[in-house]
Amino acid sequence: MPHSQFAAELDRLAETAIKVGVRLQEGQDLIVTAPVVALPLVRRIAAEAYKAGAGLVTTLLNDEEVALARYRFGNDLSFDRAPFWLYEGMGKAYAGNTARMAIVGENPMLLSDEDPERVARANRANSTAYRPALEKISGFEINWSIISYPTTAWARVVFPDDQEEMAVAKLAHAIFAASRVDTNDPIAAWTAHNRKLNEKSTWLNQNNFAALHFSGPGTDLTVGLADGHHWAGGEATAKNGVTCNCNIPTEEVFTTPHAQRVEGHVRATKPLSHQGTLIENIAVRFEAGRIVAATASRGADMLNRLLDTDEGSRRLGEVALVPHSSPISQSGILFYNTLYDENAACHIALGQCYAKAFRNGTSLTQDEIAARGGNASMIHVDWMIGSAEIDIDGIRQDGRRVPVFRKGEWA
Amino acid sequence: MPHSQFAAELDRLAETAIKVGVRLQEGQDLIVTAPVVALPLVRRIAAEAYKAGAGLVTTLLNDEEVALARYRFGNDLSFDRAPFWLYEGMGKAYAGNTARMAIVGENPMLLSDEDPERVARANRANSTAYRPALEKISGFEINWSIISYPTTAWARVVFPDDQEEMAVAKLAHAIFAASRVDTNDPIAAWTAHNRKLNEKSTWLNQNNFAALHFSGPGTDLTVGLADGHHWAGGEATAKNGVTCNCNIPTEEVFTTPHAQRVEGHVRATKPLSHQGTLIENIAVRFEAGRIVAATASRGADMLNRLLDTDEGSRRLGEVALVPHSSPISQSGILFYNTLYDENAACHIALGQCYAKAFRNGTSLTQDEIAARGGNASMIHVDWMIGSAEIDIDGIRQDGRRVPVFRKGEWA
Repeated sequence: MPHSQFAAELDRLAETAIKVGVRLQEGQDLIVTAPVVALPLVRRIAAEAYKAGAGLVTTLLNDEEVALARYRFGNDLSFDRAPFWLYEGMGKAYAGNTARMAIVGENPMLLSDEDPERVARANRANSTAYRPALEKISGFEINWSIISYPTTAWARVVFPDDQEEMAVAKLAHAIFAASRVDTNDPIAAWTAHNRKLNEKSTWLNQNNFAALHFSGPGTDLTVGLADGHHWAGGEATAKNGVTCNCNIPTEEVFTTPHAQRVEGHVRATKPLSHQGTLIENIAVRFEAGRIVAATASRGADMLNRLLDTDEGSRRLGEVALVPHSSPISQSGILFYNTLYDENAACHIALGQCYAKAFRNGTSLTQDEIAARGGNASMIHVDWMIGSAEIDIDGIRQDGRRVPVFRKGEWA
Repeated sequence: MPHSQFAAELDRLAETAIKVGVRLQEGQDLIVTAPVVALPLVRRIAAEAYKAGAGLVTTLLNDEEVALARYRFGNDLSFDRAPFWLYEGMGKAYAGNTARMAIVGENPMLLSDEDPERVARANRANSTAYRPALEKISGFEINWSIISYPTTAWARVVFPDDQEEMAVAKLAHAIFAASRVDTNDPIAAWTAHNRKLNEKSTWLNQNNFAALHFSGPGTDLTVGLADGHHWAGGEATAKNGVTCNCNIPTEEVFTTPHAQRVEGHVRATKPLSHQGTLIENIAVRFEAGRIVAATASRGADMLNRLLDTDEGSRRLGEVALVPHSSPISQSGILFYNTLYDENAACHIALGQCYAKAFRNGTSLTQDEIAARGGNASMIHVDWMIGSAEIDIDGIRQDGRRVPVFRKGEWA
């Protein structure tokens, strides 16, 4: 796309990020995390944040070359280190009502050639250190949002057969379209989209299903839903009272499975790109909510390390419904990035549940969430189980079945 | 200079920064702060740090466009904000023996067109928030070092009459030469240089002067030295036992003035570039250690705001001797950056003193330092009073005068 068009859509993406995504409040501080190569978007977001009356905007920029230097030259002990002081500080900032914007666009394959044990150790150390801050996000204490930037490294992975410039242009086009900033009024487009998602989640909440049953090729899975689960999608209101869109884009409605009530087997319908490693053809079997067997044709080692992270990493924290006709699914692009790929298909997530996916969830304690069947873990990893061949039934509290999806679409 | 030469000297600068500057210990974590445009050096420093056995390297990259966005679009209240959580975290990291590397190269004129009151408010908020962490640096709790990178914005200010590429090449040449990385063995060059600086500080310590008397055009200044003051220069040993070079380059030997015993008047011999504002032709008068009158032909407003920062900002925290023949002085370049300009001339610093410039200073409490005449402040701002026309006498405890400098050179 022409540079001027790219710049104009990036302007709109920044405005959408602040006004729709995080919906920054006057006087509120903001932390922005981003790959350093996303600087053109970071700068626009800082400007939009200040225009919206931000207190202070603090940017934390990370660089993939610096991250790789540890794997290339690092002392073995360094892989158990994490910046506790920084994450503790971020947690304090959130506790003080600082909003959070994450810009993603990492190279999905960055660590694919590194020793999986080192990758897993580094991830575990990082997750442990970040957990107190992450709980403020998963507990929806503050308004937060994730958006993306078309980095060169990411574009190369998504469009390996294109010249670099073309690959970046294609990824930018896909990002801008999915984020609804390819129109003159993204704010209005998001208002309409939020209304549509709200209709679906309202219908699901009225039905108050005890479980969902997924069936399709390689899949026969019953996902019991948590007691007091709540279907959410699109904009939602954080504990600090701010209504924000946590993901831009988003096409899903989602809720909380019961950590002990998942039975059967399921096959992933797309590869999972996790922390730089591609995991393909995942198939798992659940008993009493727990994954008791797991295979993958590629990345099985990483998958098993992921499942062994902690007590909660073999249980589900989220189930989400996305029609096969969703624009991201129809683009046919595998993004190797959860923010996009989870919006292309129905999915489930291993690990931590979201407080906002319970009725009155943001006022529940962690013990109350656990008592209702909400899962707890250091991880939250989505993987795709939806396709044009998937049927979903809702199972009511009285056992009656209601069609929810047929052949990948709302029934 | 050719790109390959630039890359080779940058490699050596990174190696020198880790091995001579911060002298990172095996297993020690490192925080690197830098302008985002210094990324080529940041990446090399991360690699060198890991080669030296670093624990974890954490980089904090700041961007000038983001900083300017606050001035262009920011709510007035935002100028009293600072990232307390981040600075508190840095202080904790230092308390946990994390080493610190600062890469400087900011545009010295970045904020020169902004409202000085807003600049001063933002600086004050930042200094207040950073103070606990800064005390760990000024108290020499850990090994730390400052080096520089030839950014385009800085080069443009230093060489305004050159094309951009030439300006950057000239600044790079000056930085690499002053940092002694334009030789094949920078480590050996630094060993020799440290020995030379040590000879000078040893002679001054043996003399144990009560005061120094500076005389020259517009200057007749007696700087009483703190009780138990210690002359330092070049490498020094932090409280954590690591011997490092805090400044690369460095040409000075320095000690601690007595906060109550400075008398007379002094004229700056170079402009002072402070937080984006140029202050020219500073002239001040001291009574009982305190600046009671201050003028400047440009930036007087900023100077007065600086002096009004806190109780200690009108008193001296450092006096340093640099011969007029120092390589940086002889380059004839005004760098608009303290790391360089302070090494071109004798100078004094307003504000906070350094514990390492007391005998056994790193084991003194803050109260003990204050009792010996050490000054305390949120600021530490060096300004140049040396030239080829300055004479300095040392005044012994018995009142006898000893020539120290004549016409800007060691007597």
